[in-house]
Amino acid sequence: MEIQAGKLLAAINSPADLKKLEKDQLLQLSTELRQYIIDVVSVHGGHFGASLGVVELSVALHYVFNTPYDQLVWDVGHQAYGHKILTGRREAFPTNRKYNGLSGFPKRSESEYDTFGVGHSSTSISAALGMAMASHYKGEKDRQHIAVIGDGAMTAGLPFEAMNHAGAEKSNLLIILNDNNMSIDPNVGALKEYLTDITTSHTYNDLRDNVWKALGKLPVGKNFTRDMASKLEAGLKGMVSKSSNLFEALNLRYFGPIDGHNVVKLVETLNDLKDIGGPKILHIKTVKGKGYDLAEKDQTLWHAPGLFDKVTGQIKKKLFDLPQPMKYQDVFGYSIMELAEKNEKIFGITPAMPSGCSLKYMMAAMPHRAFDVGIAEQHAVTVSAGMATQGMRVFCNIYSSFMQRAYDMVIHDVAIQKLPVVFCLDRAGLVGEDGPTHHGCYDIAYMRCVPNLIVSAPMNERELRNLMYTAQLESTKLPIVIRYPRGEGVMPELQKDNMATKYPFEEISIGKGRKLKDGETVAILSFGHPGNFAAQAIRDVKAEGINPAHYDMRFAKPLDEAMLHEVFGKYTKIITIEDGTVVGGFGSAILEFMNEHGYKADVKIMGIPDRLVEHGTPKELYNEIGLDANAIAENLRAMMGVKVLTN
Amino acid sequence: MEIQAGKLLAAINSPADLKKLEKDQLLQLSTELRQYIIDVVSVHGGHFGASLGVVELSVALHYVFNTPYDQLVWDVGHQAYGHKILTGRREAFPTNRKYNGLSGFPKRSESEYDTFGVGHSSTSISAALGMAMASHYKGEKDRQHIAVIGDGAMTAGLPFEAMNHAGAEKSNLLIILNDNNMSIDPNVGALKEYLTDITTSHTYNDLRDNVWKALGKLPVGKNFTRDMASKLEAGLKGMVSKSSNLFEALNLRYFGPIDGHNVVKLVETLNDLKDIGGPKILHIKTVKGKGYDLAEKDQTLWHAPGLFDKVTGQIKKKLFDLPQPMKYQDVFGYSIMELAEKNEKIFGITPAMPSGCSLKYMMAAMPHRAFDVGIAEQHAVTVSAGMATQGMRVFCNIYSSFMQRAYDMVIHDVAIQKLPVVFCLDRAGLVGEDGPTHHGCYDIAYMRCVPNLIVSAPMNERELRNLMYTAQLESTKLPIVIRYPRGEGVMPELQKDNMATKYPFEEISIGKGRKLKDGETVAILSFGHPGNFAAQAIRDVKAEGINPAHYDMRFAKPLDEAMLHEVFGKYTKIITIEDGTVVGGFGSAILEFMNEHGYKADVKIMGIPDRLVEHGTPKELYNEIGLDANAIAENLRAMMGVKVLTN
Repeated sequence: MEIQAGKLLAAINSPADLKKLEKDQLLQLSTELRQYIIDVVSVHGGHFGASLGVVELSVALHYVFNTPYDQLVWDVGHQAYGHKILTGRREAFPTNRKYNGLSGFPKRSESEYDTFGVGHSSTSISAALGMAMASHYKGEKDRQHIAVIGDGAMTAGLPFEAMNHAGAEKSNLLIILNDNNMSIDPNVGALKEYLTDITTSHTYNDLRDNVWKALGKLPVGKNFTRDMASKLEAGLKGMVSKSSNLFEALNLRYFGPIDGHNVVKLVETLNDLKDIGGPKILHIKTVKGKGYDLAEKDQTLWHAPGLFDKVTGQIKKKLFDLPQPMKYQDVFGYSIMELAEKNEKIFGITPAMPSGCSLKYMMAAMPHRAFDVGIAEQHAVTVSAGMATQGMRVFCNIYSSFMQRAYDMVIHDVAIQKLPVVFCLDRAGLVGEDGPTHHGCYDIAYMRCVPNLIVSAPMNERELRNLMYTAQLESTKLPIVIRYPRGEGVMPELQKDNMATKYPFEEISIGKGRKLKDGETVAILSFGHPGNFAAQAIRDVKAEGINPAHYDMRFAKPLDEAMLHEVFGKYTKIITIEDGTVVGGFGSAILEFMNEHGYKADVKIMGIPDRLVEHGTPKELYNEIGLDANAIAENLRAMMGVKVLTN
Repeated sequence: MEIQAGKLLAAINSPADLKKLEKDQLLQLSTELRQYIIDVVSVHGGHFGASLGVVELSVALHYVFNTPYDQLVWDVGHQAYGHKILTGRREAFPTNRKYNGLSGFPKRSESEYDTFGVGHSSTSISAALGMAMASHYKGEKDRQHIAVIGDGAMTAGLPFEAMNHAGAEKSNLLIILNDNNMSIDPNVGALKEYLTDITTSHTYNDLRDNVWKALGKLPVGKNFTRDMASKLEAGLKGMVSKSSNLFEALNLRYFGPIDGHNVVKLVETLNDLKDIGGPKILHIKTVKGKGYDLAEKDQTLWHAPGLFDKVTGQIKKKLFDLPQPMKYQDVFGYSIMELAEKNEKIFGITPAMPSGCSLKYMMAAMPHRAFDVGIAEQHAVTVSAGMATQGMRVFCNIYSSFMQRAYDMVIHDVAIQKLPVVFCLDRAGLVGEDGPTHHGCYDIAYMRCVPNLIVSAPMNERELRNLMYTAQLESTKLPIVIRYPRGEGVMPELQKDNMATKYPFEEISIGKGRKLKDGETVAILSFGHPGNFAAQAIRDVKAEGINPAHYDMRFAKPLDEAMLHEVFGKYTKIITIEDGTVVGGFGSAILEFMNEHGYKADVKIMGIPDRLVEHGTPKELYNEIGLDANAIAENLRAMMGVKVLTN
């Protein structure tokens, strides 16, 4: 069934077409845009709630501003579907997030309307300010620079750094605070409460107006002198004009809050703001998932629901005859609870990913021991370090690519102080449809070079459980990284209900690998989940008479040196496999070991190549870069000089 | 001349001794403590202004609180000299920052009073909150957790992330905002203006009191009904209690500002605050350098003045007969101006280090093109990326160890988008007295693994100039890292006044090294400044008949592959040298190249070992780790099988 855009929307191939509409047609257009997003995402998948929440804003921005000359930056770009559809990508939109299709985020190479690549959150104000400062310097005074940022993204430190700078600059910057009380999960922290405060009961502007009005009516007389009145007024003005609003305190002119679903009001307000120079912030209230009832009601579930029946709202799940392996994240989520029940020192920390990393189970069961700190990776690491000084064992769970945000804290607050924090790096390796901003490619390299850190990766669910168990033992004195990929493991026999009884925790010696099989001539050294690709490849080439050894090294640091001496004593050809960059990663660690000990084997390093890998399914991407069982088998054949006919 | 502590101070060997004093003796003690710091620092060197500014606070905190049971975290610990002297380290204090002596920062392994290692700024609130949450969980309700943080450190994002979290927690946390309007350089940004606002004219609390007083006197009558009065009062209360203060907006109870040099007032205030639970902030006003007139007047110069005559205030400079090489930072500072005069697209950005990195010259001469963005490394990188989208060529200068803070922005905002931002990483390699928190050990490894990045290092001042020139050429399409060490270069003949004429800019082909000399059997591949150690070593071993080749590789990425094919074709023994970690760094890049191309040479990788290197002079430290000319010479002899008698 081909998806048809509504009549107005179908005629819009660029913002110029949009500008031809009358203002009173924008409501209809918004409805059509919302419907088109629902139609396409229900069938083709993607993020959902965020873009529905900014349909009217997307229409209003492109209606009022002169994009792409005016620079529009969408924070955490998964809210930008409407923007994409309005800027010449309506017909291509069904390819969204698919291999070779549109990116799920704004992307500079995709469109001139995409001014900044925004996959990670909280970058938009800094980027737009940089643009505004450049325009200011060039004398382009008519040029507008707009950052659209959610209240969730505002909890990160970067927007605060940017506002502190913006408030001291004269540049033409408009921040639109899209306040919907949500990240992927409900938003947390003091800022959220503050935004609720200024929105409910009295709005800030109403309050100010009322106060001025009342002051004008103050009756001056015997008991209340003119002097007293004037002191009161001066005092109040001082408070109200400068200090009475968080954003005005930072020297940003504050406007709002207004209803972000009233497209006409948005157009009028944005038109007014165009004429006000300098840094300013417009606070709009929106509902994530707006216009799709179920999505409004369960906003976390409908953040990115997968495919669904748009009429019934039933989310389509694959059905299987046999039990499927659990997701690694759920193995984490249930195993940390199991550990915490026995070890009262265990805490859990997540920066705004309680659902994604499955800490939500522990947060519900043990609310005093598991915390969502907001989109605040830096703080997540340093608060974990603070807890660790008090003897706590903190599991700090951060996606691999987001951990890049907290790199200094890992070094400065944890590793240098040898505090035994446990870093669980979820979404390590290629994450798939989110693409290059989200791939967890670099952590092996950027963690391995830091002294005192242990860097590990489980090959399967049981290994993950045992690494977690080992990490929280008192005998483990150093910080440890445990990295694992997005999605399912490989052990369908291990399930939530039987993991504690059938797979009881076992200690793993730090720095000890597992020999999975002996072999001849060639040995495979794998690190983490891709060991399963290797195991498959070994099965595939068996009939060809190729019989490699296989070692699951478990640790990129410290290396199992005894095991490696065995390997290099017995085998002359080596394949290393990891789902991380081939530059400076696990394979390089093996080369460093060889060099130090004078071993001279032929080594093939398999991993993520030193280039950006775009989006697609993980399977498509691992195939593209040659990091799957087939590619391993090919390398085995090449190393052994075996040629087979391809079928 | 032995330095004597004053009479009161000499009797204080721990906070228990301090608590024996009467409150009216604290002024005298403060005077003695201040004098002792002046006496020791003038002769032994170290940070100066920051600790003088918190003398009274240091006394008051240890007088009032039950340290170390109560947890005291000093942000950017170079303000903690008074703390160290009061907590059992008075006699050891002259060893401060010296090899094997006291650390210049609080350090957990040095004292139980040092609760958290704090070299980088802005970590204290997160760390103290983590401690407070652990205490809360353990039921230690009497335990206090105090973060002392400057207004400069507050401009970073991390404290905002921490306050957002703290304001939603019930933990017992006291933030002391030490407001002195300074980082190392004068503080910048909107927050600074805000803090000035709430300090000057009316203080926030006075204002509030006056308003309440005036409201109580409102005469209700015909023209001003009781209803109007009550509405006004409710409106005002709403504003004042919740929104009227930046910190109260974040749900922190705000107290102050008070005079941070009135030790008795501090003691009384802190005593009061002890009984108030939950998160709160005390705003104190101090003067950096307080009590030493010259330091009060030129706070940047006296941040860390080196040795000086405490009576005359003359700062002691080494005198030389011959011209000395310029510092790399000054070569940067003057060369960027020279480039910017010709290329109008050039901008300069520094996060709070205009003096340290010498961008101050351009900031003075071209204030619209060079900016200090505050202690905000993340924003520094992303605002640079935003500028780069508008065609600007931004030199973003960040110390190597501080760049760890902006790692995600380098990847996500710059490298993935191929924006040609120029990252000048000052203070790469071992920085000396600041120690492990500040050593720039990891950048080669953590930058090299990122696609699209060029990673370079100049061997001398001229090379730095030429790399900078190359970086800003339109033909350079990718982001580039230029890393160089703290301190002097090696070319006394190159000076500020002649660099433009005698050393005109020359383009360097990206990825092209320099062959400095041919040789026999062994080749040295050096990266950056340590190439000079190699050159010295080559001179030293010449008489022994050892004649190594020497290549200044210039680029760790992309490698000069043609040059490496020549090297591995001609030489069987290789030494690689870098002032970065041996794990995953330049040496590993050479191993990766060899492995890919099947070369089997003997390689000795020289660099910073995979352990923490403590503080001392760079010379002491490079000697300790075996990364100087002597160590290179030893390696050359060992490789060539030459034994010499040591003298």
